[in-house]
Amino acid sequence: RINSDRLWDSLMEMAKIGPGIAGGNNRQTVTDEDGEGRHLFKRWCEAAGLEMGLDEMGTMFARREGTDPSLPPVYVGSHLDTQPTGGKYDGVLGVLGGLEVVRSLNDLGIKTRYPIVVTNWTNEEGSRFAPAMMASGVFAGVLDQADVYQHTDKNGKKFGEELERIGWKGTEKVGDRKIHAFFELHIEQGPILEDEDIDIGVVTHGQGLKWLQVTLTGKEAHTGSTPMPKRRNAGLGMARVIELVHEIAMDYQPDAVGAVGHMEVYPNSRNIIAGRTVFTIDIRSPEKEVLDAMDGRIREGIDTICDALDIKYAIEQVGAFDPVTFDKGCVKAIRDAADRLGYSHRNIVSGAGHDACWINRVAPTAMVMCPCVDGLSHNEAEEITKEWASAGADVLFHAVVETAVI
Amino acid sequence: RINSDRLWDSLMEMAKIGPGIAGGNNRQTVTDEDGEGRHLFKRWCEAAGLEMGLDEMGTMFARREGTDPSLPPVYVGSHLDTQPTGGKYDGVLGVLGGLEVVRSLNDLGIKTRYPIVVTNWTNEEGSRFAPAMMASGVFAGVLDQADVYQHTDKNGKKFGEELERIGWKGTEKVGDRKIHAFFELHIEQGPILEDEDIDIGVVTHGQGLKWLQVTLTGKEAHTGSTPMPKRRNAGLGMARVIELVHEIAMDYQPDAVGAVGHMEVYPNSRNIIAGRTVFTIDIRSPEKEVLDAMDGRIREGIDTICDALDIKYAIEQVGAFDPVTFDKGCVKAIRDAADRLGYSHRNIVSGAGHDACWINRVAPTAMVMCPCVDGLSHNEAEEITKEWASAGADVLFHAVVETAVI
Ligand SMILES: NC(=O)NCCC(=O)O
Ligand SMILES: NC(=O)NCCC(=O)O
Repeated sequence: RINSDRLWDSLMEMAKIGPGIAGGNNRQTVTDEDGEGRHLFKRWCEAAGLEMGLDEMGTMFARREGTDPSLPPVYVGSHLDTQPTGGKYDGVLGVLGGLEVVRSLNDLGIKTRYPIVVTNWTNEEGSRFAPAMMASGVFAGVLDQADVYQHTDKNGKKFGEELERIGWKGTEKVGDRKIHAFFELHIEQGPILEDEDIDIGVVTHGQGLKWLQVTLTGKEAHTGSTPMPKRRNAGLGMARVIELVHEIAMDYQPDAVGAVGHMEVYPNSRNIIAGRTVFTIDIRSPEKEVLDAMDGRIREGIDTICDALDIKYAIEQVGAFDPVTFDKGCVKAIRDAADRLGYSHRNIVSGAGHDACWINRVAPTAMVMCPCVDGLSHNEAEEITKEWASAGADVLFHAVVETAVI
Repeated sequence: RINSDRLWDSLMEMAKIGPGIAGGNNRQTVTDEDGEGRHLFKRWCEAAGLEMGLDEMGTMFARREGTDPSLPPVYVGSHLDTQPTGGKYDGVLGVLGGLEVVRSLNDLGIKTRYPIVVTNWTNEEGSRFAPAMMASGVFAGVLDQADVYQHTDKNGKKFGEELERIGWKGTEKVGDRKIHAFFELHIEQGPILEDEDIDIGVVTHGQGLKWLQVTLTGKEAHTGSTPMPKRRNAGLGMARVIELVHEIAMDYQPDAVGAVGHMEVYPNSRNIIAGRTVFTIDIRSPEKEVLDAMDGRIREGIDTICDALDIKYAIEQVGAFDPVTFDKGCVKAIRDAADRLGYSHRNIVSGAGHDACWINRVAPTAMVMCPCVDGLSHNEAEEITKEWASAGADVLFHAVVETAVI
C-alpha cells in the first residue's frame, strides 16, 4: 500500500500554489503559478531519484529507471494545471498519485523491469487556451503543435509564447516516446461512486466531446431609441442558442450533456444592443452517433435562429474527441488490483475528457477513479477524503507495478 | 444663422480625442480621454470669452454674461462623454452646438439680457458607471451625490475617485444654480426623422426607463461529468431572462422596448457551468403604466425561471426615470424657431434618456433633435450630415436667443 499521509501532504502542499478565492486553486496553464507548481513537482521528483525530461509542449516526464532500460516505460500521471476557479484534486491527484507510486517503490526497495515515468501533461483544462488535453493531443498526433502554439487566450496572448515565457518549453520532440502502458488516476467529477458508496471506478469508456465556438454578428444600436423590429440583437441570438443547446441535451440525456459556459459580449454596455457575441458550446456523449446528431441539430438551429434575427454567424470547432474505449488489458489490471486490495468497484464511463483519452490512441491505457463529494468539480469547493485518495493511489500502485513487472 | 463650418470643424476636432477602433469614439466618462476632451472644450470656451464653473460632480458651466447679470441664465448643452464604442455626435453635438450659439452671438455682437451658460454634464452615458445622466440627476435632486460617488465600474473603480483622479472634481455645490430655461440639441438616435425626410424633431416627451441589474447564483460544476438534472446553471437562467425581456417588449411595442446589453459570466470557462451571472435589463416606454407592467411581469418571470432551475436571484434597480413631458413654453420656442427658419419639423418622443429629462424637473426645458443616418447610435458608425447639424444648431440658436431676450 502507498503512504497515504505523504500523498495527502503533497496534495495540500501543491494546493498552496495559485490559491483560489474560495479554498480551491487558480493555477491555470502556462501562468506564473503553473511554473511555480512545476518547480515544486520537479524538486519532489529529483528527491525521489527521478530524471526529468521536458518536451516542446512543456510536458514533464520524470523517469525511474527499470532493470531493463531498453524496455518502453510504463507511464503514470495526469495534469497540474487547474481551472480559473478549480479544485485541489482535479488532475493533481493523478500526478502526485503517480509520484507516490514511485516513492512507495523506493520505500520498499522494489525494482521494476520496465522503467516508470511520472507525467505532468501541459494544458489539460483548456480553459485559458482551447482545446483541452492540448499537450497529450499533440503527443498522440491528433493536434498540430505549430497550430496550438498560435492559440490565444482572452487577452490575445499566444500559448507558445506563454509557455516560453514561464521557462517550461523543452527541446524534446513531442510524441517520440514509446509507451508500454499509461495509467491515470482521477477524481470522478460526477456523483455515481459517492451515491453508490463505491471506492473505485474502473473506467472502461470516456465520453466524446465537441466544442463549437460561435460568433454572432448583429448590429450595435441604442437600446432605447432603436425600434424593436429594426434590431439585430446578437445577445438575444446567444440566449436562444444557449436554450437550444440545453433542449437538445435534455432530449438525449442521460446519454448526453450540453451547456455554454464561456460567453463574451461586445461592447457589453447597458444601453447598447450587443453587436457581437462569442461563446463556446460544449456537448458530450459516450455515443458518437448521438454527438453527431446533436451537432447537426445545433447547426440547423443556429441557422434558423440567426435567420429570424437577421444576424450572421460563424461556427468554429475548437475542440473535439470521439468517445473512447480503454484498453482491455489495462482495464483488467485496474479491476484486478481493486479486487486484490479488497476495494469495492464498478465499471464507469468518464464524463470528462482526460489525457488518457488521447494517449489511449497510441498506447494501451486505462484510468482509475475515486469518488468526489457531491460529484462536484470545476468548482473551488471540490472535495475528496484522504481515504478515497489513498484507495485510488493503492489501485494505481498495484496496476502500475503489475504492468511494469518486478 | 450659426457658422456651420466652424461647428463641424469643432465636432471633428473633438472626435480626435479618445478615438474608437472603427471611426467613432471611446471617450468614456472620467477617463483620461474625458479629461482631455474637457480641456479642449475649456480652451474653446475661454477663447470665446466665457467664464468656467465646475461643480462637485464635474459638470462644466461656461457663462456668457447677460446685460442683467442678476437674472438666472438660459442653459444650453449636453455631454462630451461617449459609449465605449460610441459615435462622434451623441452628446457632443449638443455641447458644441451650445458653444456655437455663443460664438455666433459674439460674431454678431449681440448681448442678451439673460446670461447664457454652455454646459457639459458628467456621465450622461451610464455605461461605465450606472446610472445614465448621473450628474444631471444629482443636480435635479433625484440622485444622491454621496451614493453615486461610491458606484463602481467593472474593475471596481469608484466614480468619485476617478473624477478626482482626472482632476475635474470642482468645489461648487451641485444643484445650487437657478436656471431660467434649459435647451438641449441631440441627434435623434432613431430612424423617424430620416425616414420621413424631416429636418427638425421638436421633442415633446421622453420615454421612461428602468435598469434592473440581475444577479443569478447557481453552482459551478463540470460541463461534462455533471448529470443534466443535477445542474444549477446560471448561464441558462440568464438566457431565459433575456428571452423573457424580449417577449415582454414585443408584447408592448411600439409603445415599449427592452433588451439586455450588459452581461457578465462567472467563471466564464468553456467547461464550467456558470455559477453566477450578472446582467442589466433595459426597459423603456413613454407610458408609465406600461413600464410598471413590464417591470412586474419581468420580476414574476425571473422568479419562475429561477425556481425551475434551482438558482437564486437578486434584482437591483440601478437606474430609472419616469416618462417626461417637456415644458410647453420651451417646446413652443423650438417649434417657432424651426418655423421662422423654414425647416420642416414634427413632434417627436425621445427614445433615449437625456440630461434634459432630469433638468426638466427643476427648470423649463426642451430639446431639439436632428436626424442621424439609419437611426444608428451607440455605434461607432453613427453618422450625420453637416446640413442636419447646422439646421439643429440654427434652431437651438434662435430658441436660446429668443428665451434669453436681446
Ligand atoms: N477532467 C477534466 O476536467 N478535464 C477537462 C477537459 C474537459 O472539459 O473534460
Ligand atoms: N442619449 C443617450 O444615449 N443617453 C444615454 C442614456 C440612455 O441610455 O438613454
